[in-house]
Amino acid sequence: MPIRKPLRSVSKPGHRVRVALAGFGTVGSSVVRVLAAQDFDGLELTHIFNRNVAKKRKRPEAKLVPKSTVWTQNIDDILNSDVDILIELTGGLDPALSWHRRALSAGKSVVTANKQLIAAHGPELAKLARDNRAHLLYGAAVAGGVPVIPGILQGLGGEQAVRISGILNGTCNFMLSAMQSGAEYADVLAQAQKLGYAEADPTADVDGFDARAKLTILSRIALHVELDQRAIAVQSIRPISAVDFHYAAELGCTIRQVSEAEVDGPLTRARVAPMLVPNSAPLAWSHGTQNMVVTSGKFGGDVVFSGHGAGGGPTAVAVVSDLLAVAHNSASVELPVRRTRTTGEFIAPHYLRFLVNDKPGIVSSISGALARVGANIDSLLQRPGYPKNALPFVITTEPCTTSVIDRAVRAISKLPCMLQQPLCLQILEMKDKD
Amino acid sequence: MPIRKPLRSVSKPGHRVRVALAGFGTVGSSVVRVLAAQDFDGLELTHIFNRNVAKKRKRPEAKLVPKSTVWTQNIDDILNSDVDILIELTGGLDPALSWHRRALSAGKSVVTANKQLIAAHGPELAKLARDNRAHLLYGAAVAGGVPVIPGILQGLGGEQAVRISGILNGTCNFMLSAMQSGAEYADVLAQAQKLGYAEADPTADVDGFDARAKLTILSRIALHVELDQRAIAVQSIRPISAVDFHYAAELGCTIRQVSEAEVDGPLTRARVAPMLVPNSAPLAWSHGTQNMVVTSGKFGGDVVFSGHGAGGGPTAVAVVSDLLAVAHNSASVELPVRRTRTTGEFIAPHYLRFLVNDKPGIVSSISGALARVGANIDSLLQRPGYPKNALPFVITTEPCTTSVIDRAVRAISKLPCMLQQPLCLQILEMKDKD
Repeated sequence: MPIRKPLRSVSKPGHRVRVALAGFGTVGSSVVRVLAAQDFDGLELTHIFNRNVAKKRKRPEAKLVPKSTVWTQNIDDILNSDVDILIELTGGLDPALSWHRRALSAGKSVVTANKQLIAAHGPELAKLARDNRAHLLYGAAVAGGVPVIPGILQGLGGEQAVRISGILNGTCNFMLSAMQSGAEYADVLAQAQKLGYAEADPTADVDGFDARAKLTILSRIALHVELDQRAIAVQSIRPISAVDFHYAAELGCTIRQVSEAEVDGPLTRARVAPMLVPNSAPLAWSHGTQNMVVTSGKFGGDVVFSGHGAGGGPTAVAVVSDLLAVAHNSASVELPVRRTRTTGEFIAPHYLRFLVNDKPGIVSSISGALARVGANIDSLLQRPGYPKNALPFVITTEPCTTSVIDRAVRAISKLPCMLQQPLCLQILEMKDKD
Repeated sequence: MPIRKPLRSVSKPGHRVRVALAGFGTVGSSVVRVLAAQDFDGLELTHIFNRNVAKKRKRPEAKLVPKSTVWTQNIDDILNSDVDILIELTGGLDPALSWHRRALSAGKSVVTANKQLIAAHGPELAKLARDNRAHLLYGAAVAGGVPVIPGILQGLGGEQAVRISGILNGTCNFMLSAMQSGAEYADVLAQAQKLGYAEADPTADVDGFDARAKLTILSRIALHVELDQRAIAVQSIRPISAVDFHYAAELGCTIRQVSEAEVDGPLTRARVAPMLVPNSAPLAWSHGTQNMVVTSGKFGGDVVFSGHGAGGGPTAVAVVSDLLAVAHNSASVELPVRRTRTTGEFIAPHYLRFLVNDKPGIVSSISGALARVGANIDSLLQRPGYPKNALPFVITTEPCTTSVIDRAVRAISKLPCMLQQPLCLQILEMKDKD
């Protein structure tokens, strides 16, 4: 455990902690609402930065902003001022990175919800914070209002966590929960877009990049490993169909976008992918836009955190809680993080769903391809009621590595009867003992 | 938000943090195991206190204790020494209270798992810690290895929590989970005793006193209210029978010992009791000895924490995590706590189970008694297959207050057909919206 210098004391008797807010969107305005609802009289909101301030001041929450607060379109008004804490809610890498660097270098503490920035530049910024005896807190960057980051940092520092798994993207969870009730992908995507849960371009959510950034952050604090973000395997939820939920149900499972990282000596296996999740596993409990994180430790077993992972209110709770932690001089527990080799390879049972033009010999061809790579079939499921010329059926395998099963799938996809690329999903295994 | 003096810096460059452990039982020896498994080289275990040291040194974990550590049967060896942190794992009020007072007064920080002490004397000890710029952490006092205390303190400080509910006693949860599978109370108690989950005298667990202490602590940190512990209603799980699980299942519920506190203006409703829990509610998920806490907040909705609530490994993780927090100078976020009037009165639907010698007119007498207090019947259930002369049947009511339903139950219990005191359980309502 490294010994470090105590952080600068942000709150001192007789001094109000000066706080500047950059970003007055959904989360920023909720932060103002949360602050206004409570008597945090040691805090002073000195600045709000946003583009187009005139428009932002028309939001109903602007009425809750103290008269003394300076509204500005120039970030220098904050970075060159004597504020103690910068709340950065603008998101993205540029120009947020330079703001963080300037604030921390000047000894200002930073509270942020910026997952992309912390995933990509967290270690550099944490070092800068330490060197300047400032705080850098980012509890809102993962799982919104679920206090998984402070819970792990302050409450599981003594654990040797070997695995984390989680539902880190509320959009995917909303969509897959809705598909569980029988809807098809295109319809639930349209619905999610209408409700404001999904972007016009849903790539970051459905293809796993949003969750990948969060998994990078969680691996750092829970597993104490620094992952190579680009080496984390990502698999899109786009090819999932309603029929997969029927087959999953027959297997006692549902389907969720799962983010998973597992330490294995010098290697860390890490993956964001739709997976079959046993109904009895905690990850199957979360529905709608909820988020969940399960840490698996050597000494304490599985610990589950869940709740609302997005939205103004929950995210603002995380931001204001971090703000209070800084104001109370509450330094995070920081343990050494080691670099590891990151791989997307897992050993797991797999679910293979085929859509075929049914002809004799198909099962034999498929099982032959699996046998050639050494993958054992665990079950074969074929629900009645589908047309022969577009027949979905499922094979599950015993545990094997991702690359082995991928090799078999590549061979199988070339069979002339295949109407589309076979769907291959990992089946999540429960490991905690009661 | 009160401004407070920064805490004494426990860890300084060039100084190893000196740690003394009082209590080398299941948890204490697990703490040694957790410390030995990791490279916390800034920490030094200077003393271990226990009665009958010679016997304790025969435990296998004693081999993991550093050669330099002093074993002692005299607590003064620790309290009069220059240790930085006392880990108190002996439990109970006396003499632990005087040790805490002496350690904190001398500026030593204290880490403890002592729920009874923190429930009864937490505010006094917290003030003593503040006055002496020392840390007092007790993450292990509630829910063992589930980081609910650090999670709430550091991650939900910005929330206005209005309600907490939880499964805080693993013994009761083990017993009720087993009864859910068809076993009777006496058998599962014997089994729990055999497995070491229940004491020879199970009163503290099954009658709710253990959970009551934990609810007192959680109310302080999550709801910021100081409850009158004696005014928290407690109801025993002893009268629950396997038949109640059958009826609960018909109502889409299971039965759990639930600890619940809800702020209502100047009043806090607080109760530890077996309750009907809808299968879709998070509290129904935890099985075996698991613990769970659900906080319900005005801004962020419901947040769920769950995991292993007891046992050496999980509890030691909480203790060592607190130890690291102190060693990292990580002060807890402390928000003002207000006194409230505590009442056991809840407004809720209720489950009434009668055991009667069946005669005509019984339902009419019971429904008359309910009508006289103004309680509306919601459903009436009678499963087939029971003898007429010892017939269990169930009535559920619409929401009404505890005292109103108790008045009706008192009247009903006097009916000559009643073979035993009617069982009256609150039905837990789910309030979180997705």
